[in-house]
Amino acid sequence: MDIEVIAVGGYEEVGKQMTAVRVGEDVIIFDMGIDLSKILLHDNVETEKMHSLDLIEMGGIPDDRVMSDVEGDVKAIIPTHGHLDHIGAISKLAHRYDAPIIATPFTAELVKEQVQSEQKFGFDNSIRSMEAGEVIQINDDVTIEFINVQHSIPGAIIPAVHTPEGAIVYGLDMKIDHTPVIGDPIDVDRLKELGEEGVLAFIPEAVQVGEDGRTPSEKVAREMVRDLFYSLEDHDGGMVATTFASHIARITSLLEFAEDIGRRPILLGRSMEKYSGIAERMDIVDLPDVGMYGHRRSIDRAMKRVMEEGKDEYLPIVTGHQGEPRAMLTRMARDSTPYELEEGDRVIYSARIIPSPINEGQRHQAEKLLRMQGARIYTDIHVSGHMGGDEHYDLLDWLQPQNVIPAHQTAAVRSEYIDLAEEMGYKMGRDAHLLRNGDSVEL
Amino acid sequence: MDIEVIAVGGYEEVGKQMTAVRVGEDVIIFDMGIDLSKILLHDNVETEKMHSLDLIEMGGIPDDRVMSDVEGDVKAIIPTHGHLDHIGAISKLAHRYDAPIIATPFTAELVKEQVQSEQKFGFDNSIRSMEAGEVIQINDDVTIEFINVQHSIPGAIIPAVHTPEGAIVYGLDMKIDHTPVIGDPIDVDRLKELGEEGVLAFIPEAVQVGEDGRTPSEKVAREMVRDLFYSLEDHDGGMVATTFASHIARITSLLEFAEDIGRRPILLGRSMEKYSGIAERMDIVDLPDVGMYGHRRSIDRAMKRVMEEGKDEYLPIVTGHQGEPRAMLTRMARDSTPYELEEGDRVIYSARIIPSPINEGQRHQAEKLLRMQGARIYTDIHVSGHMGGDEHYDLLDWLQPQNVIPAHQTAAVRSEYIDLAEEMGYKMGRDAHLLRNGDSVEL
Amino acid sequence: MDIEVIAVGGYEEVGKQMTAVRVGEDVIIFDMGIDLSKILLHDNVETEKMHSLDLIEMGGIPDDRVMSDVEGDVKAIIPTHGHLDHIGAISKLAHRYDAPIIATPFTAELVKEQVQSEQKFGFDNSIRSMEAGEVIQINDDVTIEFINVQHSIPGAIIPAVHTPEGAIVYGLDMKIDHTPVIGDPIDVDRLKELGEEGVLAFIPEAVQVGEDGRTPSEKVAREMVRDLFYSLEDHDGGMVATTFASHIARITSLLEFAEDIGRRPILLGRSMEKYSGIAERMDIVDLPDVGMYGHRRSIDRAMKRVMEEGKDEYLPIVTGHQGEPRAMLTRMARDSTPYELEEGDRVIYSARIIPSPINEGQRHQAEKLLRMQGARIYTDIHVSGHMGGDEHYDLLDWLQPQNVIPAHQTAAVRSEYIDLAEEMGYKMGRDAHLLRNGDSVEL
Amino acid sequence: MDIEVIAVGGYEEVGKQMTAVRVGEDVIIFDMGIDLSKILLHDNVETEKMHSLDLIEMGGIPDDRVMSDVEGDVKAIIPTHGHLDHIGAISKLAHRYDAPIIATPFTAELVKEQVQSEQKFGFDNSIRSMEAGEVIQINDDVTIEFINVQHSIPGAIIPAVHTPEGAIVYGLDMKIDHTPVIGDPIDVDRLKELGEEGVLAFIPEAVQVGEDGRTPSEKVAREMVRDLFYSLEDHDGGMVATTFASHIARITSLLEFAEDIGRRPILLGRSMEKYSGIAERMDIVDLPDVGMYGHRRSIDRAMKRVMEEGKDEYLPIVTGHQGEPRAMLTRMARDSTPYELEEGDRVIYSARIIPSPINEGQRHQAEKLLRMQGARIYTDIHVSGHMGGDEHYDLLDWLQPQNVIPAHQTAAVRSEYIDLAEEMGYKMGRDAHLLRNGDSVEL
Repeated sequence: MDIEVIAVGGYEEVGKQMTAVRVGEDVIIFDMGIDLSKILLHDNVETEKMHSLDLIEMGGIPDDRVMSDVEGDVKAIIPTHGHLDHIGAISKLAHRYDAPIIATPFTAELVKEQVQSEQKFGFDNSIRSMEAGEVIQINDDVTIEFINVQHSIPGAIIPAVHTPEGAIVYGLDMKIDHTPVIGDPIDVDRLKELGEEGVLAFIPEAVQVGEDGRTPSEKVAREMVRDLFYSLEDHDGGMVATTFASHIARITSLLEFAEDIGRRPILLGRSMEKYSGIAERMDIVDLPDVGMYGHRRSIDRAMKRVMEEGKDEYLPIVTGHQGEPRAMLTRMARDSTPYELEEGDRVIYSARIIPSPINEGQRHQAEKLLRMQGARIYTDIHVSGHMGGDEHYDLLDWLQPQNVIPAHQTAAVRSEYIDLAEEMGYKMGRDAHLLRNGDSVEL
Repeated sequence: MDIEVIAVGGYEEVGKQMTAVRVGEDVIIFDMGIDLSKILLHDNVETEKMHSLDLIEMGGIPDDRVMSDVEGDVKAIIPTHGHLDHIGAISKLAHRYDAPIIATPFTAELVKEQVQSEQKFGFDNSIRSMEAGEVIQINDDVTIEFINVQHSIPGAIIPAVHTPEGAIVYGLDMKIDHTPVIGDPIDVDRLKELGEEGVLAFIPEAVQVGEDGRTPSEKVAREMVRDLFYSLEDHDGGMVATTFASHIARITSLLEFAEDIGRRPILLGRSMEKYSGIAERMDIVDLPDVGMYGHRRSIDRAMKRVMEEGKDEYLPIVTGHQGEPRAMLTRMARDSTPYELEEGDRVIYSARIIPSPINEGQRHQAEKLLRMQGARIYTDIHVSGHMGGDEHYDLLDWLQPQNVIPAHQTAAVRSEYIDLAEEMGYKMGRDAHLLRNGDSVEL
Repeated sequence: MDIEVIAVGGYEEVGKQMTAVRVGEDVIIFDMGIDLSKILLHDNVETEKMHSLDLIEMGGIPDDRVMSDVEGDVKAIIPTHGHLDHIGAISKLAHRYDAPIIATPFTAELVKEQVQSEQKFGFDNSIRSMEAGEVIQINDDVTIEFINVQHSIPGAIIPAVHTPEGAIVYGLDMKIDHTPVIGDPIDVDRLKELGEEGVLAFIPEAVQVGEDGRTPSEKVAREMVRDLFYSLEDHDGGMVATTFASHIARITSLLEFAEDIGRRPILLGRSMEKYSGIAERMDIVDLPDVGMYGHRRSIDRAMKRVMEEGKDEYLPIVTGHQGEPRAMLTRMARDSTPYELEEGDRVIYSARIIPSPINEGQRHQAEKLLRMQGARIYTDIHVSGHMGGDEHYDLLDWLQPQNVIPAHQTAAVRSEYIDLAEEMGYKMGRDAHLLRNGDSVEL
Repeated sequence: MDIEVIAVGGYEEVGKQMTAVRVGEDVIIFDMGIDLSKILLHDNVETEKMHSLDLIEMGGIPDDRVMSDVEGDVKAIIPTHGHLDHIGAISKLAHRYDAPIIATPFTAELVKEQVQSEQKFGFDNSIRSMEAGEVIQINDDVTIEFINVQHSIPGAIIPAVHTPEGAIVYGLDMKIDHTPVIGDPIDVDRLKELGEEGVLAFIPEAVQVGEDGRTPSEKVAREMVRDLFYSLEDHDGGMVATTFASHIARITSLLEFAEDIGRRPILLGRSMEKYSGIAERMDIVDLPDVGMYGHRRSIDRAMKRVMEEGKDEYLPIVTGHQGEPRAMLTRMARDSTPYELEEGDRVIYSARIIPSPINEGQRHQAEKLLRMQGARIYTDIHVSGHMGGDEHYDLLDWLQPQNVIPAHQTAAVRSEYIDLAEEMGYKMGRDAHLLRNGDSVEL
């Protein structure tokens, strides 16, 4: 049975992930993401209204025209978690394939939201949900299994396609976290077991492969939040936090320690409402009493209430950790909301800048404006959701794959993954493959 | 006769320069500049229509309310050259003082342009021009002399106020260039002579005091341009250059070597037309046949002509070296001009990024968009217009001032100037003064 | 009663701290430190044998000749904690003053060790120990109090000199840690009380005043160590850790989690034995069963035992976190010890590089050599012992000093402290003083 | 006729270059270099006495054992220029091949010097010299041509192996300099002609492929030296310069402008004497009256003469631009030579730091020690000898090779070359080859 891996997108950038695996005549697609950094270079782009070919031209979504050369039928589209670089192109591309979308419940819900805003293309793929640890049969020979991992969003899994020749494991966007704040620890036993059963190919992320050591557990971030909040217990002015809206574990920590120090947390901003709302509806977290406001008017009302009752009573958790021009924190920085910042107010970035000169410029501008109003700023109260170099080493050691095909980075960084693989006995071109968008490799 | 130096602006930033010197009852003001970086943090600010107090509040112009405590009459306002951080607040502040503006002819002309756009305040100060090497009498005891220096704009001088107690030399924005491309070399003999006559106080720029060595001569930049242009002699595609519109020496080099390699230079963009137009009208350079276009429609026409006759026949020299969102090169990057970039076109930045995360973000975005259209980019074909650390050392050695009062930087960087001064025998607090905006020192 | 602060050393560098406070005719000296970075520029310097004047000439110890101009008698020499930049010059300078050395017990013990190695000068000052919270009478009007703080070594205090005019608080080398791993949390109540009683002058460290936010608690470092060690629980090869030998809290965490994952910790290296040995003898920590080896031969024996019994049974904690050429880890990197590194062994730096190109070069070389032997490296498992910018803000807010005199940095960085102080209403030259080595200020 | 390229060394680092080309049964070897950065990690290594296998083990020289699998006879060993990363392993490896060494006269002379110091292996390969523009016949079908290029040493060429299938061009260590200071400009016409005749494969350097634009001509460096020296014309103290000893063009500029400002240049240091001595003997430059001193005693004598006659009469040009511990400038910094530095002496680095933390640490230490003696330092009076990104673009455009095989960098940086090649229509794995040390590719 011939098996092929097709690198559709995300092999020359961090973003717009899409990989297809053909097993005989059946094809499985992993992820259909968008690369917002490419889109945001342009002014006033409304992606909802754009044709996929224009977005492909811009470099914003995977160029899936390469799929027409693949001899097989797509049987499933599997987004591994709900970040936009993994699901953001589904509304543009999925309709071309007569295949269901299969994802964990939280991811499935985010896919539903994502396709609802689409205005150019129709969408009638079915969306099915499946839990980590479960398996779905594709045909007599092929099954897909979801393995629990940890990332900076709930519901992250890595899928394994089981074939007669061994498993193909698609391991993007994960870390090896033994003490996560929500969800189960990574399923190391299953990963080691897979290694014993036989892994034909492993497609790892290469995002931070060059970093020494391991990414700390989310529990360490939780401890950082606790430490910071407890030291601000006596602070009687305003206090505002921002983080990734989809990072429900982090938001949970912010909420809990806010309450510990006597502040009522409220979530402000469209994405805050969206992600936390879904997380609560799906019982991923329990947030019964936390106000969530996504629309301008309701946000303004909530802020006015804060101003009346006292800024020292509240912790607004807002969007804007990258200095995005239209996010809440940036609007607060521009003094265009009812929340009035003043000397000594604290603003906490529970996030780091996603490295790019544009983000750095925007964050700088937002911070500058906040400081001009007297805010005191805390940055980097954060740990990453991606693996450090040593976690890659362990994963390779556990899975013992016959082939490795690093993804989710430029060729330059992915070649550092190849360096690691060669240290462990692989050989570029033989069993360590450095593909580019549009390339494929037969195994 | 008591003498006082008042640090009005530019003593906590690079920008919004303003220093006053009181000699007995007469006061001389040096520079009235704007700090655009503070203004541009905000959206849609129209400085022409704003009140000075709002601009002061924003940190955008010097807070000259401190001048009301100065016991004396302002007798002259002396902008040392035509950059906006030295003349940009004249339209907002000068009308409060019953005193003429005295500047070199090129600077005077730029001041006239600057005050014309003002919409909030009236302006009836007289503007007088005076050449480097000339002297004006303020009263029986006090005269002001202009000493020729070199900076990245024509007409730069440093003024010396001669008093019975010695001279006060105001030395911002200069370099020690023995082989400038336009204008005379710096007048070292006169500087040494001043040192012998006796300098009471020297107020130097501290912009780059921490940099090793000397800033190369503009002749070195000229050689860089020549080298680059000559290597592109056979290039038969588009070629576009950008630099500071007021940097007439650099523009001269670009023009000359463009012609050497068979390309017709044209200047595009509002500031390009403004500065080069004035420079030509005032016979600072001779640009008889160079097209200059500042208005949208005439720029578009010129670009269409270029597209018709062939991009390989022309060198457009355009605004946008910092990635400013509305400048010509940024518009070209966004493909919103008639000039169509294509694979292999060359874009030359004869400038460096003025360090700030915002500039870096904007430049990055412009470069990215240019590259997406196939442009090949050359950066840093440039030398600075400010002194390196060793030039500061020489200047101090020549002038032998009794007091030094570094300006034009944050306190942190100015304290590096103090370090240099202390190496040379000065002592902070005694004869090396680290002032802040609003401070003054009696000498 | 006239009060004067004399900036003897550490006002142009991080290192060689020494400050004197004269209250009427009595003088108290805080710290007498060494600046090893200056010493190590030279080859083969044996400080033990050198005359103080030669070390002063080199810039290695404070130039205390300025003390001869101070009209008063030294009544006490108070080292605030046991780091060498605070006690390292005692053996060279203290003998000139007829005054006791007063310190917390751990610091006192380290001073005793330090003066024992001296070969040039005699030493007969008495050494007295006093706990945090205690007070000593200097004369009828003046008392000295020790206030408990947290730093990266046990026994750190900040002293307050109580005078009729208010207290002078000397606040170097501390952080505001509410959840330390050993010792009591910082005594915030007492600091606020001091603010109410009246503080005449505060002399803070400025080491990291420019950093945003707060330094995390040592408890966060402990959580990092736990997280890392637990993820290495299944690792069956060698594992080596390094940290500051005097950082007993960190060593405690390393020891504890080593045991949790089934490894026997041993301390190797001269300073490891020295600091941990003293800490144990003084009951600062309880380390009954931990082997400590400081001499070459005993270290070699211990390592041989490790090699025989299995590297997977042990965690050697060794010197060499900065890549110091003669430290244990560097010797291991050079393969000149019995401990044989091999593919997959883990080396953990529970420290960060003290920023300097020389340290960076040495650390790079050590890491490179370790990697060439197959070691996998973890860096920055660490939090700082110094305050971040926001802790400075809080301290000023609590103490409300009439004057601030930042120390322990270059003038450039200390001027950032002045920026902070000016935001809070101080004014440079009036009540915020930017002194240099050798300066003094009368309050 | 089957043709194969074997990547022996320099495909995972900048250093230890060695590439073999097999054409049918004949093999040509290009370069046999050493990677000193690997050697210098260790203490007290004496390479002259070491066996090649030990050096291979260390990663210091190419692992040429892979050559035993190549089916053919080595017919020529061609070092492309005299830098050690290209010739430094000849004494260790060449004796295994029964083949002459063919090089330009200057390179040939340096090879002779290099093999003379060898103490472990014998050497009896013949050394033949051949000028740029000349051709040598290998067999009926194969000839080798030397094409003139410019690099930071005289005598640099790039060889082309002409075969019935087209040329193989080995293009390491070069820049496209139209106005060199010594030697002829790069032979662009011949390169274009080769492109028209047909190039089967091109093996370019990738050293700086990621840098924008073009490396300036050596003429620009010359202009920088002139500008700096002329501004120091009136300086009446000491003045010392350092640069790469093999950079004869740069030394020529230093010599010439030293004389222009009335200083007698002398060359001090073992390598200074070696390279300049050879250059003069071979009539590459004309240095009749310049003193060159390589041995300790003669250097000391020369320095004493300088001290007697006046430092202001001389310009010593010395070794030590990277802060190498035993080089002349470092010894001067340590004050262990008769040349006494004093306040205001000038030290000019006509070189940049070769990027590595170890070099940065050593240079920092040397500069620090120089400054402590009062020296004022000028850095980066330099332009590179390697191509910028745009020169790579032009070269590809001229040569139009069927295959590209980037060398002389890590895989990460070489993959940036692949990016460039893909922009120009190549495809990794098809005609753009990313080899690693030990790999080969059949064309």
